[in-house]
Amino acid sequence: MQTIDWVPGPDGGAVVIIDQTALPHEVRHLTITDVDDLIDAIRRLAVRGAPALGAAGALGVVIALQQGRAKGWDDDQVADAIERVRSARPTAVNLAWGVDRIAAVASSSGDLAVVEAAARAVLDEDVAANTAIGERGADLLAEICAPSAERGEPGLRLHTHCNAGALACVDVGTALGVVRAVQARGSLARVYADETRPLLQGARLTAWELDRMGVDYRVVVDGAGPSLIARGLVDAVVVGADRVVANGDVANKIGTYPLALAAARAGIPFVVAAPESTVDPATPSGDAITIEDRGDDEVLVWGGVSVAPHGARAVNPAFDVTPADLVTAVVTERRVVRPAAGERLA
Amino acid sequence: MQTIDWVPGPDGGAVVIIDQTALPHEVRHLTITDVDDLIDAIRRLAVRGAPALGAAGALGVVIALQQGRAKGWDDDQVADAIERVRSARPTAVNLAWGVDRIAAVASSSGDLAVVEAAARAVLDEDVAANTAIGERGADLLAEICAPSAERGEPGLRLHTHCNAGALACVDVGTALGVVRAVQARGSLARVYADETRPLLQGARLTAWELDRMGVDYRVVVDGAGPSLIARGLVDAVVVGADRVVANGDVANKIGTYPLALAAARAGIPFVVAAPESTVDPATPSGDAITIEDRGDDEVLVWGGVSVAPHGARAVNPAFDVTPADLVTAVVTERRVVRPAAGERLA
Repeated sequence: MQTIDWVPGPDGGAVVIIDQTALPHEVRHLTITDVDDLIDAIRRLAVRGAPALGAAGALGVVIALQQGRAKGWDDDQVADAIERVRSARPTAVNLAWGVDRIAAVASSSGDLAVVEAAARAVLDEDVAANTAIGERGADLLAEICAPSAERGEPGLRLHTHCNAGALACVDVGTALGVVRAVQARGSLARVYADETRPLLQGARLTAWELDRMGVDYRVVVDGAGPSLIARGLVDAVVVGADRVVANGDVANKIGTYPLALAAARAGIPFVVAAPESTVDPATPSGDAITIEDRGDDEVLVWGGVSVAPHGARAVNPAFDVTPADLVTAVVTERRVVRPAAGERLA
Repeated sequence: MQTIDWVPGPDGGAVVIIDQTALPHEVRHLTITDVDDLIDAIRRLAVRGAPALGAAGALGVVIALQQGRAKGWDDDQVADAIERVRSARPTAVNLAWGVDRIAAVASSSGDLAVVEAAARAVLDEDVAANTAIGERGADLLAEICAPSAERGEPGLRLHTHCNAGALACVDVGTALGVVRAVQARGSLARVYADETRPLLQGARLTAWELDRMGVDYRVVVDGAGPSLIARGLVDAVVVGADRVVANGDVANKIGTYPLALAAARAGIPFVVAAPESTVDPATPSGDAITIEDRGDDEVLVWGGVSVAPHGARAVNPAFDVTPADLVTAVVTERRVVRPAAGERLA
């Protein structure tokens, strides 16, 4: 089961999504044939992650066209529905990208089957890219990590942060794509997953994926990762990325940078797994990246209950920037770039 | 109001404790005249922190003697009560230290007033030590941090972890003792307080103390500290310690080490504020420190609700070890030692 998929039916197809708000305790599928239901799913984060939102945007155009035909909408009504999907989460560039790519197909072809095929290609491309990232990443780790015999361990012990898994994509995942490939080769010993405060994507989503994969994994608080690395319990750090800029600086979920510092000091690889669409060659270095602050409540309130004194304030940066000299490698579906060795992405 | 205090009364005195389980939302005082109530307060962490537990142990002996006289206990019954206080938390060495120190006074003097005075001296010494640590720490920061004018900031922006405050001691605090002294000199701009997963001592306790002090503070998730430091938002890191060993390696609450890594890279001081009783000259280096693992539930369960998949496992180290070369200074009530410059504690 993919995170997001298209399921054909006799009266038209449906978008089927794993509802991530119900994880990790329930695997609930949403079957969506109405534009407003898709927008609702996007808004309440039932589907999240840049590649998954790209797929949702692409399939959203198909849903809008199909619904428009069934209900007799005119062109303006269809265009309005597509625009509402496009702007369901304004800062998600992949969502708009997915909508625009398939809307362009729709405007040049009146055949719904052609549009649907183009949208499904977006999903297939994402799976293919992640599979390639996984294989490249596993090759790289086999090359740069000390052999098991030398380490006295039966396989690799990997550390990851946040959720760069199938749940952020259509399937497979980026960092977890690498984990899957290492596991498929019989070379995986254990995965440490940072819980990833404030939203706990590691404890909730990555742990769920690792559990289903049958991986020996442990959840740790974010503050523990660096000392596990210092104690020799980790062979490599593998994370995803929100953005990789020209010099190899990497923006990723807050809490990634401490792992890179610890990995560099311990002399183990820090590997970033990300599709080419994450590479931003126009930005020269991480200094130019604006750090979004997501507000106080994610930090100060837990399950509706305030944990800090009344009137307390927080600083809540959504991501941090790991400087290129700490990044052993960036692995994409096309290449392996080694910023710490002076290689540039652009 | 001290975290733990002795209040004389017409029918004997009482231990008065701020119940830390009610913080930060309620300031509740426990007035204790019964040994079993004190043991209960210690066990359910109403009072916590090594120096505070030392005071609780010392006052526990007074309570046991006083209660024994009122109830006509024989010597064995009194000795048993004292022993039960001593072992209320078996791994808390300061608790046993406080009990033993005052039990020795009791066995050489039958005068309850003498024993009470000796116990109160333990509290006074702790306050005096922390006050001295605070002044020394503020002197040090004034010496080693760039002047405000050069930094373009009106005062120091300090970063701390966990709670090394008045609530862990009798009063004042160690790391927060330094913060208090800097504030008293009019040199404090802001404090960043790590929330400190898994038990949130930062968000709950340090934030409460900073709020009462009238400090401009912000709570941050533990993963955010290192990047705030990298972004130039912090002038110095000031933390407490669970143990400082001979070569200057420092064991402290999990999540301390990443701050030290980030401070070293950013070129800002990483300062450890701790009483001499925390210095362990018999242990040569941090390698010899056993890291306690506190079990899975603190990580995986929040307010009674599991956040991870059923069957998930955690690794939950209670503290980490920051190597001496990252420790700019250890400040005690007697001295400033600079491990990163090669100075040793013993």
